[in-house]
Amino acid sequence: MKRYERLADTIAELIRTGILAPGERIPSVRQASQSYGVSPSTVFQAYYLLEDRGLIQARARSGYFVRSLAGLPLPEPQLTPAVPPTTEVGVSELVFSVLGSLKNPHTVPFGSAFPSPDLFPMARLARSMTSSLRNLSPHDIIADMTAGNADLMRQIALRYMVSGVRLPIEELVVTNGALEALNLGLQSVTQAGDLVAIESPTFYACLQVLERLQLKAVEIPVHPRDGIDLAVLRERMGSLPIKACWFMSSFQNPLGASLDNSRKQQLYNLLQEHQVPLIEDDVYAELHYGERPPMPIKGLDSEGLVIHCGSFSKTLAPGYRVGWVAGGRFTERIARLKLMTTISPSVPAQTAIADYLQHGGYDRHLRKLRHALQRQQEAMLASAARHFPKGTRVTQPDGGYFLWFEFPEQVDSLQLFRLALAQGISLAPGPIFSASQSFRHCARLNHGHAWGPDSERAMELLGRMLRSF
Amino acid sequence: MKRYERLADTIAELIRTGILAPGERIPSVRQASQSYGVSPSTVFQAYYLLEDRGLIQARARSGYFVRSLAGLPLPEPQLTPAVPPTTEVGVSELVFSVLGSLKNPHTVPFGSAFPSPDLFPMARLARSMTSSLRNLSPHDIIADMTAGNADLMRQIALRYMVSGVRLPIEELVVTNGALEALNLGLQSVTQAGDLVAIESPTFYACLQVLERLQLKAVEIPVHPRDGIDLAVLRERMGSLPIKACWFMSSFQNPLGASLDNSRKQQLYNLLQEHQVPLIEDDVYAELHYGERPPMPIKGLDSEGLVIHCGSFSKTLAPGYRVGWVAGGRFTERIARLKLMTTISPSVPAQTAIADYLQHGGYDRHLRKLRHALQRQQEAMLASAARHFPKGTRVTQPDGGYFLWFEFPEQVDSLQLFRLALAQGISLAPGPIFSASQSFRHCARLNHGHAWGPDSERAMELLGRMLRSF
Repeated sequence: MKRYERLADTIAELIRTGILAPGERIPSVRQASQSYGVSPSTVFQAYYLLEDRGLIQARARSGYFVRSLAGLPLPEPQLTPAVPPTTEVGVSELVFSVLGSLKNPHTVPFGSAFPSPDLFPMARLARSMTSSLRNLSPHDIIADMTAGNADLMRQIALRYMVSGVRLPIEELVVTNGALEALNLGLQSVTQAGDLVAIESPTFYACLQVLERLQLKAVEIPVHPRDGIDLAVLRERMGSLPIKACWFMSSFQNPLGASLDNSRKQQLYNLLQEHQVPLIEDDVYAELHYGERPPMPIKGLDSEGLVIHCGSFSKTLAPGYRVGWVAGGRFTERIARLKLMTTISPSVPAQTAIADYLQHGGYDRHLRKLRHALQRQQEAMLASAARHFPKGTRVTQPDGGYFLWFEFPEQVDSLQLFRLALAQGISLAPGPIFSASQSFRHCARLNHGHAWGPDSERAMELLGRMLRSF
Repeated sequence: MKRYERLADTIAELIRTGILAPGERIPSVRQASQSYGVSPSTVFQAYYLLEDRGLIQARARSGYFVRSLAGLPLPEPQLTPAVPPTTEVGVSELVFSVLGSLKNPHTVPFGSAFPSPDLFPMARLARSMTSSLRNLSPHDIIADMTAGNADLMRQIALRYMVSGVRLPIEELVVTNGALEALNLGLQSVTQAGDLVAIESPTFYACLQVLERLQLKAVEIPVHPRDGIDLAVLRERMGSLPIKACWFMSSFQNPLGASLDNSRKQQLYNLLQEHQVPLIEDDVYAELHYGERPPMPIKGLDSEGLVIHCGSFSKTLAPGYRVGWVAGGRFTERIARLKLMTTISPSVPAQTAIADYLQHGGYDRHLRKLRHALQRQQEAMLASAARHFPKGTRVTQPDGGYFLWFEFPEQVDSLQLFRLALAQGISLAPGPIFSASQSFRHCARLNHGHAWGPDSERAMELLGRMLRSF
């Protein structure tokens, strides 16, 4: 990180914590240059950056001031009310119509599921591709298909080890992104008609997969900060023949909620008690803003009950379609299902990522990525506080690139979605995140793209639309 | 092709057609040099090649002679007897144990499903990968994921056009190899419990897919040369509620049989009459030995009933995992199923193949590949005639890289499989190709690898084992 970026972050933190209040004048360039021991031009650069992020504004001949927010920072959403015990899933049509709308490259991509591809080291990865293909014998290409590329699997196992999870390499199956891992994991432990405990709200692909496999959803409410409601889960597991759970324990999509370690342990104890496997979707773990990655529930898994799914699509290589699953006691079944459906993810994509992980500077890239996402989160939060109506609530996750907004009751997010799209702004309306199509007054916004004047204008427009309800 | 290779082919043809009989002396180097207008060293090279292929042998001080076959060329297998009307499928275990045995790279790979990777332009493809990644913007990588790479789809549509099939690009869905295309195609038109007409013998993955989706097989016998028995199919379609057909109309795996155009038309008329969709597995079409590629049934499809599946895995880029489906009236459903399971095949793999198809010389490569496969077929046929016991029958397909052997009744191919594996030779035993595990005295051998002394020795060993039954 550059010196001026560090300074900007320091001042942003003062604003975020209220030490510098809205409307307050921030130190002059000379003052700041002296107090922080940097050159005046570094201070200027930092202030421009903060202005860009919408945190401060210049007033003619008076210097820089903390921007007035429309009010205080927005409060946190509330825990969703209880949901019916089991639900037939039928949300696919709605999801596809929303996803279809994202294709236009000229929309402001608040509805997107991916961070900006500009945040990824695509050129460095391409070099890794070239050099790994040079070293790949034709016979390796055939061998890697059934077994997975050995270098890649070793690198994945190493990352588990660093995050404190000991995992035999034999438990890994390389997949076409996390979505295939999740699909195979769920298929390996369920049959049509079975009950599956899922989160509410949840990642819409989870609903689509349940629908496709004719499984029934048992929706468990998720607290916007603390994660899944363990009391409800305990009750449901006691009273219903649940065959599998599908949860995100860290930076849950769409809420960004994480279970703390003690709650992870409680959840694992429940799984053990009922001998129910968990499909753990953990694709955002590497996007933590804190110092350390969160521990996956897989880290507690002494019995092979957890099917842990990860991916490089959101941290390194979108479009390469390489993910993996650590399948616990279901590994062989998962590997076979994969051989019967897609055989293998692309071998060159595997070798390119393996080479990058060894030589490309993955950790350095991740640090930059996390930092960018966190800054963009600040910018979106500040902008929402300025533009969105009173009564709006919002999450503030410690990782990932989604914010979940709970708007005043009268807002219809599907209608908002259509209004916004007509103005070139996409968003993900609440109902696509639940089997029962609840969360009608909620929406998920993506802050994975560089914040700029377009984003600010889009937030202002959304604010106006929200007030029109 | 080099001059000496052309000469070798000319002489091989004389041997194949019996113009040069077994035991007969072939022209001396001087004679041949004069008659064919080539240098003596070219003749020498040609004769060495023919010796390598096992077609001729040198006798000290007497010159070269056509090798004595153990007898005449082996006759063609017989049409399989009638099979029970419907069958529950449960062959997966057996298939996996056979496939697992192929992992050892030191076995003679007669059991493999792929041709030798040495036959593919892997280095040229890698150059296409490098150059296509250089031109790929990060935003394309995200866009290509849902829609498929536009250049690749255009190239695929062009190849259809050249082979006489007009296909709107919108009907194409790019997939993770043909296996995903087949899986998605079948899922798009069936539900658990449905009846599906398949070939007998058939590609074992077809059996695994039916088993996984809990579909029931209606096995239709396949004639070793003419393809599927249309009379049986007509009867079954009239009497059973068949929901879909899954057939290979050209170079069927494992028999190599092809329907001629008039039989293709008859089959299509049946589909139309009963409004039953066909999943057409056409992955070997480009490996035709004749001048022109065979027409797919898709070429007759005026109603969008045919789901046509292709792939680059067997013709250009094994391990890249890029295939496609032309989905007819089921295209949207297939595209959505794909988005719900794997999202997309690897984008770099798609762009690399697109670049190769535009600039790499695909047709030149295909001509060489076809020629190599045909020569290797000749070598395996000649070797089988030398070493396999009387009563053995064998197919002689006009394309692909499989031969189907029907051994004397007392041969147990599963036992042969185990005996051979212990000697470092793999093969694909007959029972893995049928839901009812018939074809116990049959086996599929792969001639997709360069023929050499190891192959010859392996055939001799197999012959000895066959005689031991």
